[in-house]
Amino acid sequence: MQVAIPLYPRFTALDAVGPYTVLAFAPGFTVTFVAAEPGPVTDDKGSLTLEATASYASVPRPDVILVPGGIGTFDALGDQALLDWITEAHPHSRWTTSVCSGALLLGAAGLLDGRKATTHWALLEHLATYGAEPVSERTVVEGKIVTAAGVSAGIDMALTLLAQASDVETAQAVQLAIEYDPQPPFNAGSPRTAPAGLAERAIQLIV
Amino acid sequence: MQVAIPLYPRFTALDAVGPYTVLAFAPGFTVTFVAAEPGPVTDDKGSLTLEATASYASVPRPDVILVPGGIGTFDALGDQALLDWITEAHPHSRWTTSVCSGALLLGAAGLLDGRKATTHWALLEHLATYGAEPVSERTVVEGKIVTAAGVSAGIDMALTLLAQASDVETAQAVQLAIEYDPQPPFNAGSPRTAPAGLAERAIQLIV
Repeated sequence: MQVAIPLYPRFTALDAVGPYTVLAFAPGFTVTFVAAEPGPVTDDKGSLTLEATASYASVPRPDVILVPGGIGTFDALGDQALLDWITEAHPHSRWTTSVCSGALLLGAAGLLDGRKATTHWALLEHLATYGAEPVSERTVVEGKIVTAAGVSAGIDMALTLLAQASDVETAQAVQLAIEYDPQPPFNAGSPRTAPAGLAERAIQLIV
Repeated sequence: MQVAIPLYPRFTALDAVGPYTVLAFAPGFTVTFVAAEPGPVTDDKGSLTLEATASYASVPRPDVILVPGGIGTFDALGDQALLDWITEAHPHSRWTTSVCSGALLLGAAGLLDGRKATTHWALLEHLATYGAEPVSERTVVEGKIVTAAGVSAGIDMALTLLAQASDVETAQAVQLAIEYDPQPPFNAGSPRTAPAGLAERAIQLIV
């Protein structure tokens, strides 16, 4: 199973590397970071650079398309090479997926019209711009389109996907291999549980 | 607050990028990937390459040392430049930390003798080799030495550290920014909860 993760300037590192790690640990999966041309791509904080090792042209039909988010999504909405790659690869994919604001790129590629989808909590209503029905869930599976909530949600999405692509035991074995037994020291990861007033502060850390 | 994450061949990507993302989102933190010489470093699956942007020599005294793990740890135990950097930076750090098998490198640098520490569940007993007292917890804070369990545990450790380095509200704001509201689809992330027989299968995915 070939997974392709497109990188664009100012992506959020964990959006890409969380699901990357889950799927790269799975037997029979190959994950490739792609871009218009191979080369380094730097993240939203300017302090992490990942290599795209293949061009869009060289990976035209991956089994899984996995589009990360990040503040750079808003510029990437004008990146026609990226949108064309998504649009042309999607009809042949087994799954087309996104993490966080990556959903907006699926929307801009015309894939979310009339479909349920999710994204980062701060952007949820933006999905309606693309004709999507925003759903506040960790992972939304809508046929072969799978969208995850913000940043860290890509880990949960990848495990869900892996259970479907392989089987539950394989997904559980990867979960155990990466000791994904989360114990966040606070219960502030969702606007539903975070202390009042924290949302504005969180948004300031993103933009 | 300057955080340095040393990279070595065949590190596990999420070990580094989980806590990186938490700390890079925090106000006042700068995170730098370091190696003997700046340049690309490829992970344990051979499909992700991160740039080390600084040499050990140029970052001799970071506030936080954060050592990731990965199957490459076992070769890195013979990497004298890495061990020397840890040994020489540690007396000046505010925190010296590890994720997963990164704890073995702290051990080899002589930092765990007589101290409680944790690592990936599959390696826990190895810590005794270095005089450490193995503890099966998600994050172990032993003075300024902080060790995390396997791979994904670095996210929880980084939030714990951030609350101490800044304050609880800042850590919660980062947690909300990265929507860290984990909802794993299975409860198999620890040997305590995983189905019987899964540990051997998980280990096969790592080595």
